[in-house]
Amino acid sequence: MRRPLSNGEFDIIKTLFAPLSKEANGSFNLTDDAALLATGEYVVTKDLIVGGVHFLEKDPLDLVARKLLRVNLSDLAAKGARPVGYFLGCVWPKAIKQDAIARFAAGLAVDQDLFRIALFGGDTTRHRAAGAPLTLSATLFGTPHRQGMLTRSGASVGDDLYVTGTIGDAGLGLAALEKRETFSKLDRDYLTARYRLPDPRLVIGGALAGHASAALDVSDGLLADAVHLAAESGVSLIIDAERIPLSEAAGLWLAKQADRNASLAALASFGDDYEILFTAPASMRRAVDMASKVSKTRVRRIGQATKGEGVTLLDMDRNVIETEQGGYDHFA
Amino acid sequence: MRRPLSNGEFDIIKTLFAPLSKEANGSFNLTDDAALLATGEYVVTKDLIVGGVHFLEKDPLDLVARKLLRVNLSDLAAKGARPVGYFLGCVWPKAIKQDAIARFAAGLAVDQDLFRIALFGGDTTRHRAAGAPLTLSATLFGTPHRQGMLTRSGASVGDDLYVTGTIGDAGLGLAALEKRETFSKLDRDYLTARYRLPDPRLVIGGALAGHASAALDVSDGLLADAVHLAAESGVSLIIDAERIPLSEAAGLWLAKQADRNASLAALASFGDDYEILFTAPASMRRAVDMASKVSKTRVRRIGQATKGEGVTLLDMDRNVIETEQGGYDHFA
Repeated sequence: MRRPLSNGEFDIIKTLFAPLSKEANGSFNLTDDAALLATGEYVVTKDLIVGGVHFLEKDPLDLVARKLLRVNLSDLAAKGARPVGYFLGCVWPKAIKQDAIARFAAGLAVDQDLFRIALFGGDTTRHRAAGAPLTLSATLFGTPHRQGMLTRSGASVGDDLYVTGTIGDAGLGLAALEKRETFSKLDRDYLTARYRLPDPRLVIGGALAGHASAALDVSDGLLADAVHLAAESGVSLIIDAERIPLSEAAGLWLAKQADRNASLAALASFGDDYEILFTAPASMRRAVDMASKVSKTRVRRIGQATKGEGVTLLDMDRNVIETEQGGYDHFA
Repeated sequence: MRRPLSNGEFDIIKTLFAPLSKEANGSFNLTDDAALLATGEYVVTKDLIVGGVHFLEKDPLDLVARKLLRVNLSDLAAKGARPVGYFLGCVWPKAIKQDAIARFAAGLAVDQDLFRIALFGGDTTRHRAAGAPLTLSATLFGTPHRQGMLTRSGASVGDDLYVTGTIGDAGLGLAALEKRETFSKLDRDYLTARYRLPDPRLVIGGALAGHASAALDVSDGLLADAVHLAAESGVSLIIDAERIPLSEAAGLWLAKQADRNASLAALASFGDDYEILFTAPASMRRAVDMASKVSKTRVRRIGQATKGEGVTLLDMDRNVIETEQGGYDHFA
């Protein structure tokens, strides 16, 4: 009724995953059914990534592992939290080889060291259906900033609207990987790296706690996530399209497009940016500047919160650019 | 580059999942990127279930939802913890319909009420690959008993070995569903229910905290999980096959088998029992009896811990029954 004896599953956990617990207190080195988190307040987030949806099935597995951690770390960053550890769920394709799992675990190890987190537990299993893709889940937890957790709902009318880093790179990187757009080798490498390996803005996230009034990470697209922030805060957000920060590569791409406004709207709709979109009162401009300097993270003021609802994108003549604000929708 | 505007994903979260947050403090009604857990010590566990692996693809989705919660609740039960809430990850098949998701959410609602837990966050997406099965992940958290969390590693030489409930039912239920075994209608209904809807032993789990020396839940099979407990505690476990508690249905099945010992070993290897296997010093026999009475949960003493390692199954003449102790292995 059960398959023949093999210690494959337990061996994989013992040899590849247990060392990732780093003997963290309460992880029991992954030898127990549950972990025990020490007394504290915890910020917790859970994001899934699926082969063929959030990453390409030929993507190197160490990068996939790092992307899994980083999309979740990005959520903690936008909440101003300091990451502590994570729980991992892996459903491997039927034909997975142990060395592929080892490469995945090696990717986890790299980012665990970089972001100082440890694996506290999880579950690993395998699809029986041929062709079912690698499906990954991570639940990350961290401690909130002493000033409290940043939420989506704190923006007030009159607040400035900011975004970190640059917008649209990951979408262009995906287009390059899918051969829908062509770039110079240098730009292609930069853009595909932005797609494959987002850079969670943890340092500035922590620095913004107590200064920003609302924040979230840009994963569905700048416009779509602005819609979320506006809705939860009960404000309208006005965004100057020309102030949206672009990388050199995205700027070059934009210069070549026939319809500049539509292309700016496209860059603001791609998703996978993993930057922080946030608001702060005008009285906080110096504090935001300081947070940017201390964290060595670019911040651009791109608009403001006004009375009303929804998000409006304005061109250089203050005319409204028509946009689709739904962002990426897995059920569309 | 992105698909056309639709609010499907956000609608599903808002209408079907947000109400499951029950406005729990820190859940933000699922409107934020992360949840904020109040100050406390937390026991955390994460189990995946996958269509075609842990449940049958034709299983009713409300029962699948409840099984997802229950396999995780069982882990908390075995640790003596009181469940508080969970994070949910769903990857739906490509062709999923919204009413199927609604049925799934209805199943969650039933067990949330039964076990007094709330949904604190998560992620939902959809496979692009046709034929890729429903893949579910839940991270459950609870508060440890004031006596501390039960672990796998606390058993000592001389301790008694116990198990709750009955063993082997779920495996026979799966065999019935897969038409590998036939039963009377009454027995079939009982056994398949045991497979589809495990009963997490939360009440006795809490009652055992401070009395049991080690515990874990039986998910891989009684023998395989006994191997885990023995290994983590550094003891050998001797189990009397004839003392393994069986339901009436399993007893009837056993009586019809040609090789009684091999069939007892099979029942002890099926998995999916979600009972608690635990040890306690002989001085705790009255306390264990009391815990059983107070929680109205059957407990059977089935063996003891001795010096050495591994697990030995003895027949009624105290001869060793040859067994495969690997249990269910997803990588076999």
